[in-house]
Amino acid sequence: MYAVHKNSEVFEMLEELRIGNIFEVPKVPEKDKNDPYANEPLRSPALIPSSSTPFNAEPPLSILVDNFLTPNDLFFVRNHLPVPIVDPKKYHLDITVQGKRKSVSFTLDDLKKKFPKKTVASVVQCAGNRRSEMVKVKAVKGLNWGAAALSNAEWSGASLDDVLKKAGIDLESLDMEHVQFDGMDMDPTGAPYGASIPMELARRLKKDIIIAYEMNGEEIPRDHGYPVRIIIPGIVGARQVKWLNKITISNEESSCHWQQKDYKGFHASIDWHNVDFSTVPAIMETPIQSAICEPANGSELEEGADEVTVKGYAWSGGGRGVVRVDLSLDGGKTWHSAELKPNNQPLYKSYAWTLWEATLPLPKDHKGKVEIICKAVDSSYNVQPDNVDGIWNLRGVLSNAWYRVQVKVP
Amino acid sequence: MYAVHKNSEVFEMLEELRIGNIFEVPKVPEKDKNDPYANEPLRSPALIPSSSTPFNAEPPLSILVDNFLTPNDLFFVRNHLPVPIVDPKKYHLDITVQGKRKSVSFTLDDLKKKFPKKTVASVVQCAGNRRSEMVKVKAVKGLNWGAAALSNAEWSGASLDDVLKKAGIDLESLDMEHVQFDGMDMDPTGAPYGASIPMELARRLKKDIIIAYEMNGEEIPRDHGYPVRIIIPGIVGARQVKWLNKITISNEESSCHWQQKDYKGFHASIDWHNVDFSTVPAIMETPIQSAICEPANGSELEEGADEVTVKGYAWSGGGRGVVRVDLSLDGGKTWHSAELKPNNQPLYKSYAWTLWEATLPLPKDHKGKVEIICKAVDSSYNVQPDNVDGIWNLRGVLSNAWYRVQVKVP
Repeated sequence: MYAVHKNSEVFEMLEELRIGNIFEVPKVPEKDKNDPYANEPLRSPALIPSSSTPFNAEPPLSILVDNFLTPNDLFFVRNHLPVPIVDPKKYHLDITVQGKRKSVSFTLDDLKKKFPKKTVASVVQCAGNRRSEMVKVKAVKGLNWGAAALSNAEWSGASLDDVLKKAGIDLESLDMEHVQFDGMDMDPTGAPYGASIPMELARRLKKDIIIAYEMNGEEIPRDHGYPVRIIIPGIVGARQVKWLNKITISNEESSCHWQQKDYKGFHASIDWHNVDFSTVPAIMETPIQSAICEPANGSELEEGADEVTVKGYAWSGGGRGVVRVDLSLDGGKTWHSAELKPNNQPLYKSYAWTLWEATLPLPKDHKGKVEIICKAVDSSYNVQPDNVDGIWNLRGVLSNAWYRVQVKVP
Repeated sequence: MYAVHKNSEVFEMLEELRIGNIFEVPKVPEKDKNDPYANEPLRSPALIPSSSTPFNAEPPLSILVDNFLTPNDLFFVRNHLPVPIVDPKKYHLDITVQGKRKSVSFTLDDLKKKFPKKTVASVVQCAGNRRSEMVKVKAVKGLNWGAAALSNAEWSGASLDDVLKKAGIDLESLDMEHVQFDGMDMDPTGAPYGASIPMELARRLKKDIIIAYEMNGEEIPRDHGYPVRIIIPGIVGARQVKWLNKITISNEESSCHWQQKDYKGFHASIDWHNVDFSTVPAIMETPIQSAICEPANGSELEEGADEVTVKGYAWSGGGRGVVRVDLSLDGGKTWHSAELKPNNQPLYKSYAWTLWEATLPLPKDHKGKVEIICKAVDSSYNVQPDNVDGIWNLRGVLSNAWYRVQVKVP
């Protein structure tokens, strides 16, 4: 099992790396009490930031296929606001039903000791994963993510179902429309990051939704929600609230900006001058996705190579497992089947990703370069769209066209 | 409510239509006792057959958008074998668990009187809907379906959950892998049509799976499974066994040809010489689908028209509702939003289709013809693929590329 680095260990690692002159340790400025980002955790220098405040970063794409469970310090980071400092001894999770005065609270110790520990391996993917490909069609608003704005981990904690039951709440019989989650990360006005999921999804998933306090067998790192986050497998990362301290059963969706005015999908002729965010639902389950992690785009194969080994990931939302990954080296004229590595989850309740691999003969008429295409198919036989043009949208979300990598063949 | 025509009424209707010289009444041959198709039901002459023995037919595409619930005699027909003649007084449904000797039987009267009547509006779609578009890329095996090999009806009966519970079977605790369904339609060797669904899907859907004895408030017509069929909302028609008389809880999938060696999806470089049907799972839930029902392909708009009203359907498997239908009149350069008619089902448990409509200005540079494109998006933000080439497969199933209609503008 991978060991999570404590802050001090990360610092030592940084020092070691500095000696090797591979990475520069970022200079730690004098702490400014007015700077909400003064107390951010130290991070692995291997992460590639797409923004520093709030901190957002993806690991190198190639490392994703090295581990079925992404190591904690290499797991992609998506923060919307400064990372809060939470005292685990003072932590409590409050659960409320709209219209009822009384809320029920659980301490961290309660969550660990009063409920059976449940574990689920599941992908967290940013809605904007692969946005950088969409940007090439036309500018969009959002972080310029590559294809590594997702990772896969094993999450452990109490199940939402168990905790709600202990709080006297039965989602099956409760006539409410949404389950809201609030975090402890706050914007400058003091409003927390929040999200909600429709009751229908909560009912379907409830035994699989984890109020998580462990990530890959260790405490959840600060960047990923220490001490507690919600894991709602099969749906977009933005709803899986980190630093979770409040659950509200309500007839209303979360009023949070990111639920109401962001992370929704529009067609390509809707832009900022004519968008009406109320016309489509907030993204929950996400569509079938895949990408090639090896070889890297723009890389050069070995001299005289007559075959290429291709590796990557595939994943779909909604618990839909991956049934096929197809590869082409000739622009889609002919296709090859990748070997899928088992993720040991049922096909219709598959929350972890599927890593895959194939070794393919290079076309003889390659003229020094080859484009490798991958596309995946999920258990509903959903496919990825051919081109990014048809799915372009103003926020650059849901970018899941056929993935293409160009390599040189010397 | 639409009245189902009794055989005699259909015959009268045929006579009337004949007088109008619109349709020819097919000659009824002398009955041959050895002909398994000698006792087929009479059918609406409006249906457009794609094969006569077994009988398969779709309604005219344009009528689909006339009714949220497709009238029973216009509902598309997909038969794999001769239609059995079932005496409702002798009918019984047998329920067995693999490895247990005793089975439990229910008569038609039991199903009607011993269980609460549940109703679900749901689409039944043939896996081969829109196969005729795939054929244009390269020949496939299968009926040459247009885009009307699906229809939407309200199905009523006992829920599978209720019936299994009465039979002493609890799917949640039963450690078995599949639920098999057998029909009373038989091949020349005496083997029935059969299918199965994975236990994971049965558990998720069980309250919504209907052992149906009514279709749109009437007895189910013979072509659609009289007296009883299984309705498994959100999945492909092939598993929704008609003339159902046996349910088996088993560790095995149905051994039936159509489960094992048919209705699976492969990539375009797998053809009959190299196919291995065991490598991918049987189609269950189906991907997002949409089509334009009006105007018809090849039709001519009114002289001087400067706009066009477009109508169609959209539907996705797995209970995924439709969040958007996008239309383009300029090859995908610009897109318009269609107005979605509410289907009154929750977005994440939406088994009926969504009918839609839009009136769009014709491009000024139309040069006498316009291509109308539609593509839909489901609640998992799955999209339709741009082109049929990338999804071509040897059986011509899962044909759901952007739908295109050419119209003349005089």
